[in-house]
Amino acid sequence: MALIQPRTLKGFRDYLPAVMIPRERIMETARQTFRSFGFAPIDTPTLEHLEILTGKGSEETDRQLYSFKDNGGRDVGMRFDLTVPLARFAAQHIGTLGTPFKRYHIAPVWRGENPQAGRYREFYQCDFDTIGTESVLADIEAVTVIDSLLRAIGIEAFTISINNRTILSGLLDSLGLGDKTTPILRSLDKLGKIGLEKTAAEMVSAAGITAEQADRVLRLTECDGPAEQVFAQLPEIVGNHEAAMAGVNRLQEIYQGAIASGVSPDRIKVDVSIARGLDYYTGVIFETTLDDLPSIGSICSGGRYDNLAGLYTKQHLPGIGASLGLDRLLAALETLEKLSSTSKPCPVFIPLFDADFRDDYLKLATNLRAAGIGTELYPEPKKLAKQLKYADSHGFQYAIVAGGNEWERGEVQVKRLADKTSQDITYQHDAPESLIAALKG
Amino acid sequence: MALIQPRTLKGFRDYLPAVMIPRERIMETARQTFRSFGFAPIDTPTLEHLEILTGKGSEETDRQLYSFKDNGGRDVGMRFDLTVPLARFAAQHIGTLGTPFKRYHIAPVWRGENPQAGRYREFYQCDFDTIGTESVLADIEAVTVIDSLLRAIGIEAFTISINNRTILSGLLDSLGLGDKTTPILRSLDKLGKIGLEKTAAEMVSAAGITAEQADRVLRLTECDGPAEQVFAQLPEIVGNHEAAMAGVNRLQEIYQGAIASGVSPDRIKVDVSIARGLDYYTGVIFETTLDDLPSIGSICSGGRYDNLAGLYTKQHLPGIGASLGLDRLLAALETLEKLSSTSKPCPVFIPLFDADFRDDYLKLATNLRAAGIGTELYPEPKKLAKQLKYADSHGFQYAIVAGGNEWERGEVQVKRLADKTSQDITYQHDAPESLIAALKG
Repeated sequence: MALIQPRTLKGFRDYLPAVMIPRERIMETARQTFRSFGFAPIDTPTLEHLEILTGKGSEETDRQLYSFKDNGGRDVGMRFDLTVPLARFAAQHIGTLGTPFKRYHIAPVWRGENPQAGRYREFYQCDFDTIGTESVLADIEAVTVIDSLLRAIGIEAFTISINNRTILSGLLDSLGLGDKTTPILRSLDKLGKIGLEKTAAEMVSAAGITAEQADRVLRLTECDGPAEQVFAQLPEIVGNHEAAMAGVNRLQEIYQGAIASGVSPDRIKVDVSIARGLDYYTGVIFETTLDDLPSIGSICSGGRYDNLAGLYTKQHLPGIGASLGLDRLLAALETLEKLSSTSKPCPVFIPLFDADFRDDYLKLATNLRAAGIGTELYPEPKKLAKQLKYADSHGFQYAIVAGGNEWERGEVQVKRLADKTSQDITYQHDAPESLIAALKG
Repeated sequence: MALIQPRTLKGFRDYLPAVMIPRERIMETARQTFRSFGFAPIDTPTLEHLEILTGKGSEETDRQLYSFKDNGGRDVGMRFDLTVPLARFAAQHIGTLGTPFKRYHIAPVWRGENPQAGRYREFYQCDFDTIGTESVLADIEAVTVIDSLLRAIGIEAFTISINNRTILSGLLDSLGLGDKTTPILRSLDKLGKIGLEKTAAEMVSAAGITAEQADRVLRLTECDGPAEQVFAQLPEIVGNHEAAMAGVNRLQEIYQGAIASGVSPDRIKVDVSIARGLDYYTGVIFETTLDDLPSIGSICSGGRYDNLAGLYTKQHLPGIGASLGLDRLLAALETLEKLSSTSKPCPVFIPLFDADFRDDYLKLATNLRAAGIGTELYPEPKKLAKQLKYADSHGFQYAIVAGGNEWERGEVQVKRLADKTSQDITYQHDAPESLIAALKG
């Protein structure tokens, strides 16, 4: 019979152990962090009724959607994000769950876009949201969660940039430009690329506003410096307009609350220039960049929204949430050489040095595992050098070698694979303490 | 605009926090256990080329497959198990990974079968396998992993039944019935339902063997009792046939090795009557039942196979693995009332009792989290009774109440929600130790 060629679909990938181990570690850290704030896990189906997914979709998401007719003739689609399923879920269950409802959801999503370098048609999202409250405490908490999460992952040098959309929208209102928010935001989004003068010119031509109005808008985005300084300048820049000042005050409250929660002031930047595109945020927004690799972009972004589930329910559900960019973060950690390269999730390797002592190796492995030390026992009685090569190439930390002489003396040889040093350590099955201490120390 | 009705597809379900919390806990326990033996995580795409999935499929799996043409006109399908993707994965990557290759894979699969009570069209599988070795140590380890896994989950009363397929196949060979294995197995599978006599009659009629041959086969399945007794009887039952005896000896080796590894003899049953249907196992097979709820069936099954990836590669890849039935296990734990019902993943609740002290609540929550105590702070300044009702209904263990008087005295009130008792505990932001000790104690 002809063989079937083993291959994955274009835009999809296998995760081999060396990539999957840190991936899983970060997901577990995220779960622990979310849980420690009272966010609870949920899961929703991969497939949804197509009308649920296309309800609010842009043309772009509709085009990228994996959709088909199932065996029962239903139009179905694979979720392309975790926000639409959350909206559907909240509309369906919020009566049972009550508010505030705090959930996290770590799961894959699918988009049939043309894959670029480092982007795939299947990828994980890692979202947390608090729904059903407009309290500033939920905004403060979101900043605190991001801070805790990155530090738990082992990242120390990062900046959480925060802004409040109502500052700009208030300013635009005060200038009588409330109805031109979309073209102005679209121009503002290009600021980083095309610079101040061209952005101003585009605002005048594309949004049809005066040069003076464009100047007022751009003065806001230029407001920079330490938080205290920004907060001192903002009242004058927004002309003390009431709605804009409410936005400034709330942003200041979030900033101060995050610091009261223990977030280092060095790690929060009040940045009134960030806009987060044209998406659905209506209040505070944030982005998170790595100080050592800002070019990779935001690795954790989010914000406050007015009404999550308006397509599915009349119940008004405001909320706030953010999403960790798992793949982007892993790529960054790899670039920064902060990922240990191992294809084994446990530190200790026991070669099957002398098969006559098989039960002793089994007992040794059990004793180490019982002490919380992950241990792999090689299954074949190959030459020791070959077995140790396997241990080396798979990234184990220790090999524990014992043959007849060692078992008789009540000792084992502990090899540190990184520096090829060895040490004899006392060991008996009923007295494993010295060995455990040596491996943990 | 008309609302879209929020609903899930037939046969699919949402996981709300109260169900998802224990689910996630068990998956994490499984990961930890697998890792402690040196099994490494992998992941494969949800979608595969259709030919990969239908290569070996039975008519039944083909009918249940979710398949469609993607936007690029490719025939694709959603995986219906984790074994076919593993076979494809191994064929593709084993050159890079080397053998023995030990992996686990915890992921959803999809089958468009008609949903019955408690069965869904999307469900998780939780598999571990060791590929590329025929060593009995890998067989012993599989039994040990199952034992460790269930104990880590908190189950003490269970039985791992083990058998070796080569015992029956050796016996059939010795009787000259090697070519009738399939109809004989099909009849044997009915033994539990239709009893000894009818099974014997069916073997004679359906497989065309003599009554005496049927009797020899059925004597094997009747061999019961303590392991030592079974091993003592088997040589005579299989007529000391060489291949069958090799199977008996290997089974005994597995039994003894598992006990040397610390598995309690009470938890292993040598049961030469189990067959695991007509599937692809060729050596040791096992099933695991809960002593307090045997009716739910096997919650962890598996076995040794000859050649995993023959459809995709010429490389001969023997292996052994098993699969934890996550949903069945959760249903059993629920029936046995061993699932704690909580919709919150953290123990401590802080009501926002007096909003003037917001920063104090934030600091208190941060201090507890830093000590590893998950803590949720309520975001709205509602009446205390209302906030405590929220805490009660969500299953928090403690509420920590503090207002102006308490903060002044350097105390907080710790309420134990289960028994409504309260206690005042000394607390200051720079001296949280007494409170942490009280909550951990």
